[in-house]
Order: sequence, then C-alpha cells, then structure tokens
Amino acid sequence: MTPDEFREYGKQVVDWIADYLTNVESLPVRAQVAPGDVRRALPEHPPEHGEGFAEILADLDRIVLPGITHWQHPSFFAYYPSNTSGPAILGDLLSSGLGVQGMLWATSPACTELETVVVDWLAELLGLPAHFRTDDAGGGVIQDSASSASLLAIVAALHRSSGGTIAQAGLTGRHTLYVSSETHSSLAKGARVAGVGAENVRIVDVDPKTLAMDPVALDRMLAEDIAAGAVPVLVCATVGTTSTAAVDPVRAVGEVCRRHGVWLHVDAAYAGVAAVCPELRSLHDGVAEYADSYATNPHKWLLTNFDCTVMWVADRTPLLGALAIHPEFLRNAATSTGAVVDYRDWQISLGRRFRALKLWTVLRWYGAEGLRAHIRTGLAQAAKLAAWVAEDPDFELHEPQTLGLVCFRPRWPGRKPEEADAATLRLMETLNDSGALYLTHTKIAGRVVLRMALGGTRTEQRHVEAGWRAIRDAAST
Amino acid sequence: MTPDEFREYGKQVVDWIADYLTNVESLPVRAQVAPGDVRRALPEHPPEHGEGFAEILADLDRIVLPGITHWQHPSFFAYYPSNTSGPAILGDLLSSGLGVQGMLWATSPACTELETVVVDWLAELLGLPAHFRTDDAGGGVIQDSASSASLLAIVAALHRSSGGTIAQAGLTGRHTLYVSSETHSSLAKGARVAGVGAENVRIVDVDPKTLAMDPVALDRMLAEDIAAGAVPVLVCATVGTTSTAAVDPVRAVGEVCRRHGVWLHVDAAYAGVAAVCPELRSLHDGVAEYADSYATNPHKWLLTNFDCTVMWVADRTPLLGALAIHPEFLRNAATSTGAVVDYRDWQISLGRRFRALKLWTVLRWYGAEGLRAHIRTGLAQAAKLAAWVAEDPDFELHEPQTLGLVCFRPRWPGRKPEEADAATLRLMETLNDSGALYLTHTKIAGRVVLRMALGGTRTEQRHVEAGWRAIRDAAST
Repeated sequence: MTPDEFREYGKQVVDWIADYLTNVESLPVRAQVAPGDVRRALPEHPPEHGEGFAEILADLDRIVLPGITHWQHPSFFAYYPSNTSGPAILGDLLSSGLGVQGMLWATSPACTELETVVVDWLAELLGLPAHFRTDDAGGGVIQDSASSASLLAIVAALHRSSGGTIAQAGLTGRHTLYVSSETHSSLAKGARVAGVGAENVRIVDVDPKTLAMDPVALDRMLAEDIAAGAVPVLVCATVGTTSTAAVDPVRAVGEVCRRHGVWLHVDAAYAGVAAVCPELRSLHDGVAEYADSYATNPHKWLLTNFDCTVMWVADRTPLLGALAIHPEFLRNAATSTGAVVDYRDWQISLGRRFRALKLWTVLRWYGAEGLRAHIRTGLAQAAKLAAWVAEDPDFELHEPQTLGLVCFRPRWPGRKPEEADAATLRLMETLNDSGALYLTHTKIAGRVVLRMALGGTRTEQRHVEAGWRAIRDAAST
Repeated sequence: MTPDEFREYGKQVVDWIADYLTNVESLPVRAQVAPGDVRRALPEHPPEHGEGFAEILADLDRIVLPGITHWQHPSFFAYYPSNTSGPAILGDLLSSGLGVQGMLWATSPACTELETVVVDWLAELLGLPAHFRTDDAGGGVIQDSASSASLLAIVAALHRSSGGTIAQAGLTGRHTLYVSSETHSSLAKGARVAGVGAENVRIVDVDPKTLAMDPVALDRMLAEDIAAGAVPVLVCATVGTTSTAAVDPVRAVGEVCRRHGVWLHVDAAYAGVAAVCPELRSLHDGVAEYADSYATNPHKWLLTNFDCTVMWVADRTPLLGALAIHPEFLRNAATSTGAVVDYRDWQISLGRRFRALKLWTVLRWYGAEGLRAHIRTGLAQAAKLAAWVAEDPDFELHEPQTLGLVCFRPRWPGRKPEEADAATLRLMETLNDSGALYLTHTKIAGRVVLRMALGGTRTEQRHVEAGWRAIRDAAST
C-alpha cells in the first residue's frame, strides 16, 4: 500500500470510526450472534490474491460488526469500562504509524523517555510517592495489563525474598502469597505461572460487610505459615476489587507486611486512576509508606485505549534483578554507560510498542481538570443510581456503594435464595439479550448480585436512567 | 473529543503518517539524541488544562521525532525488520476505534472468531499441520511477542510433565530446559519467570559451522540429566536464530524429544513466516511430527505491525490446564456450554485487544501471492548482498548465509583478533552515527561480526547497494 493509498483509505477508516462512535448507541450492546456465526461467514481458506480495501471494509460491516459487543456503547455497564477516547485512538495510531520498537533506549530513545515522563506525570496526578519516580529508587513502566503487573510483582518479590537465588537455581520450598476472596484472578494465575502453585495462594478473610481484607486475619495467617516453615513472599491489597469495588485497608495491610518482611503489591487496576481527584486521594493511604509495587489501568477509567496499565515499583532493583539478561545481540553503547532505562528489563517480553504516545495524547488533550471531570461524571452517575436503587422497595443495594460501581439485586419476595438467584440471572440474560444495555453479575455472600459499572466515555445520565428503567421493568414482569 | 473533532484530527494524523512514510528516507535512521535530551524537552509536570491537538502534533515533530530510531526507514538493517504496512496500520486503527476487549468469546464474539480464522489461515499458508487448527486438538492464538510464547510453552510443558501438580502445589525438584548458545534470551527469561532458574537452562552444543543445535549432544545431555535425577521439561529448537538466522534440525531434535518424552517448542519467531513461500517450506520439516508448540512473528517479516506473534500448540489441554481459572465475575452462558474459545485461557493476561484485525487486513490486502513477493524480495536482496561480500577480498562472509540476514566482517589484515573486533565495532558505530544506515552486531565463534538484516517493507535494492557502499567506504578509510 503506497503512502497515497494509505492517505485515502486511512481517511475512510477515520470516517468509519467517527461514524461508528456517533452511531454506536443505535446498535445492540451485546453481540446477538451464536457461537460459530462469524466464523462460518468467513472464507475457510486465505485469499491467494490481494483484495481491495473497500471489500475489507464492507466485510467489516457485514461480518465483523454484528459479532461485536460494543464496549464503547453508552449503555455498556458490564465488567468495568474500557475507555477509549479520540486522543487515545490517535495516540495509538501514531504509534502504529511510526512502527518503532522500544525494547532498548537505543532502539528509539523517545519511546523510552516519553514513557518515563508520562508515568512520572501520572504518579504526580494520582498523588503517588516521589520514590515511585524513575529518577528515584523506583520507577514506572507501561504494561499490557494489570495481570502482567501481578505476575511481575510476584517474580520481583520472589527475587527479593530469596536474595536472588530463585532466578539462578529455581524455586524450592514452600512460597506463599496472600490474597482475599475478592482479589483478582490474575494473582492466582501469576502464582501458577511463577511456579508458586495455586495451593500456596492463601485466602485471607474479608470483613463481611465491606469485603475488605482483614489485616488481623492476615497477620495471624502469616505468623502461622511462617511457624509452619513457609516463606511468605507477597501480599496483594486491592484498591477497587473486580467484584464490588471494595478497597482493602492498604495502610493496615502494609503495616503487617512490614512486620513480616513481605512484599506489598497494590492492585489498583480499576480505582487507582480515580485518585486524579483530590477528594479520592485517600484511596492511596498507605501506598507511600508500604507499597513495594502498585498498578493502575488508564485503559479502564482514564480515557486511554486498552492496553495501558501503569506499574510502579518502590525499588526497581529486585524487578531488574529478576528479569535482566544481556545477550550480545542487544549490547549497545547507551546501555553500557548505565545512563539510560531499557524497559525490556521491566517486562516479560523483549519487544514493546510505543504505548506512551496514547497516554501522552490523553494527558495533554484532557489535562488534569478534564480527567477529573470524567471521573466525577462516573462517580455522580453511580451515586444517583445507588440512590434510586436504595429508594426502591423491590431492590436491595449492596452497601457501601463505592466509586463508579453499583451492585444490587431484586428482592424477589417470597422466593427461596436459590430461586431468587436463578431469577436474578434470568433477569440479567433477558436484559442483555435485549441489546438495550449490558450488565454482568457477581456473588456477594453467596448470593447473585447484578453489577452496573459507570464511567464509560460516552455514558450520560440519560443512559443510566434508561438502564435503570429497563431493569425495573424487566424485574416487574 | 467529539466524533467530528476525531474526524478532523484523525485525518491530520493520517496525513502525518502518510507524509512520514513518504519522507522517512530523508531522516537519520538512528536517533541522534543523547540520553535525557527528549526528557529535558518535555514539561516536568502534567498539564492542568487540556491542550489543542495542533499543539500535540507540533510537539510530536519538535520533541518526539528527533528521538525516534526509524524502524521503517528503508536503510534500517539492524536486529530484524519490524514490518509495518498500510493495511496493518489501518487494522490496528480499526481495533483502537472499536475498543473491544476480547478476553472471553462473549465479550466480543467476532474478536475471538476472526482470530481463530486468521490463525488457521496462517497455519495453512505456512504449511503447518492440521492438528494445529483450533477445530482439531491444538489451536493458534495471537500473543504480544515470541517471548510470551516461550514462557507459555515452558508453563504448558511443566504442566504436562508434572501431570498438573505444579499448577497446584508449585515447583519442586530440578526441572531442566534445553537450548543452544544461539537460542533467544526469552527462553532464559521465561525460565526465570516460571521458577525453573537460569542454572537449569542447559546449553546444548551447536555445529560450529552452521550454529545449529547438535541433536546428538542433546540426546547425551538429556540422558545424563535424567540419570542425575533432573526432570527435563522442554527443548527449544529455533528456526532462524536471532544472531545469525541459523536453523536447528527440528526433525532430529524432535526425535530426541520424543524418545525422552520432552516437550518440543519451535521458536520460528523470525523465519517461520518465510514458509509462506513453498520453496522455504522445508524450514518446517519435522514440525508436524514433533512440535508441541510453535511461534512465529508476522510482526517481524510479514508486514503486520508489532505486536503480533502467532503461537500454536499441538494439544491445547496442557496450556489451558496450566492457565484456566474461572472466577464468578467471568462466568457466562457461552463459556459454560463449552462451545466457544475463551482466549484469556491461552495467555498471561486476562484482557486482550482485537489484534486479529490487523492480521486479517494484511492477509486480505496482500493475499498469499503478495506475502510471497515480499519475502522473496528480502531473500533476493540478502543473496545479492552476500554475493558482493563474498567477492570482496577485504571482507569475510559468514556462511551459510541464510534467509534475509547477512553476517560479515572486515578482514582487517594484520590486526590481532581483539584489535580487529574493536575496529569492527568502531566501524559500526561510525556508520550508525552517520544516520545513513543502521546495523547491529553479534559474535560468531567469539569474533565480532556485523549483521545486516533485509526484509524491510520499504527497502529496495538501491538501499542495499548504498548501504554496502557506505560500509566499504567506511572500512577503507
């Protein structure tokens, strides 16, 4: 494709996306296809001869689009938002167009240095401590996802606790990790990948009301495990759990970690970015004093296209010690001087895209005040919805309602718990099948609960109202 | 940013990229900045107020572009190519615009099913076996990089060799991996991450001429290690090593693996895609019979933007057994039926972008014949360059010269080896400093050798000629 063809088709694609974002509201939120529908509509064999771009775009409309669940639909309330925004899409596009690979500083200095700057900027915006900065002992880096950050935290923690012997000789003995029932599954996955094993992921009790980790129970479990000969490696405290947006008491958990010499990873994937608002800075209470690693996802609620997780470490030495390998083919003058950061030593992969561009375009286009306004819009929508639910005698609100998530269920008076749960799931399927909105569920204290997550880039108050109306109507029929 | 603002700025960005790709040849290949230059040119603090897109683009030109090493420059001969192409950039753009997250089939069925189709298409184009197909025992999946594929192969192999106990109870005992001195560093990194440890990555001898793994030495080492109580887990055979594009004898290595019941991972990151040409199908000799996992990178030499590694497994059971975790918040009807693929169980991360779109746009725009033409152009350029080097009495060609890579060094008559090596490195720095071309080096039999990798999207014969002329001129002054 020549640059001039690219110019022509590129503008068609930009128009396609602008039209898509304008019209996405008119599409069913959740794809209405059955398994295999999309696959069957596509040719079984690859094309021998090249095709025109118009044909590709036509098939995008005809085959792909009906199979899309529209995460950017204003009535997408499932999971957590996965914000896109115009500047983020364009930052991503610039990254694709430049096509550089930033594994080393030398392979594109701007790719590395812009990343260092934007993660330092973000640390400042979120009130994270100065020692997270790359010019201090720590440093920030963009990862693809918080799952990778979890795995890397485990690997770095194992490196520190073993004095580096695991990287050389491999794992021996029993190494334990500490999570709660509400911790993201990436910790369990990371434990398997790192060779720790699922059985050594210890589940700490939560407060039954707030679903926050109980630091006293953690302390007790750590003491017992140490007495039994285990080597505790890492505790994960979550700021905004996946299920209910619960917030673990980072400071109290951190004090326990410090006492036992255990690495504290703070998984703030969902909620950390909300601290861009000073009134939510308390989400990070204890992070400065106790967190050894911390991750949050601008790709969830901060208007930056997936994938963009920012992970910081308080001390980069264990992370780099665990991961750095210097083969001859990567040797270069800049690395030898030690004057530069080579981000390949901060991640699983060697190669890396120029993801900092999209975070840069987002931070500049919106500015701190624009980001705060976006977070506050989601918070206000959630608070309003929670108030409606609380006022409605047919529904039960899960409290405390926190941040941009509202969890609730119909009361289904007169039904046994298991019947009520089945009815709640049926209600959700009916709503999702309608295409008018998209919800997911979770379980709280064993009971099925609906989750309605606000904070979508295009979600306005009227969408929340319409969603709530649809839920009430469906529950009462 | 409204859709109409996106329309306006998006077209500016498309023009910016089209201009960039038109003019990239006039820029110095390697960035000419010193460490810290880019960082110092950027504000220390994030903006409080949003800025205009014109200002962002202006800073892109003023601050970022001088810090870019231009991987898409036609005279970028370093490392291996990291091809972009118009259709790939547009596929990536469509993915960013749709902003879907394909962790589950249900979260965007087309994201999953298009991926299954394009990886099946690619398997067919590369002559890979039918059992790699998702409708057979195996399956293909797009990963961010071959490093992740290496780690996943190790994790799956550990799962199989331990009968699943490692995922539950963690690693115990000595587990060994087998590579050669030429194997990519991602195997050593993966071994550290997976808890196997660097010391248990065993280095098998290579043939001193071809630098290919010696299967007899492998067989001997496996027998010795087993006798010493180790549990051999995985052998990595490479098709196109990073250093010299050497090709390990997959069939002979595979026979040894089969005999000892060890997982065979084939790392064809660089060269696998070349098998799109029938005359290079022999690169895959033995893969059908012996490979348990296999990875190749369309993002290197197959016109598809980074990141796009395709990994296949012969049997998906151990991979899924090692990674699948099903928390309540991800339960959904489609997954429960077992009728769909959920790619989150095929990778480290939970979330995933719609990367299949760019591979789809590439396969359709170029067709099989277009892809073959691209590979053959790089092969022909490399063969021609190798012939010039071989004819030149002042240079020594590393033979066999294979695929799109040419390794050579000035003879530097009369100099001792270490002086000659230092002179070769100085020559490379002089050339790279000039901005006219960009080369990297490696070591073969302890001697510094220059690597010149062909296969760039925009590299024409004239660029190879000019590059060779520049090298000769610099070496003779």
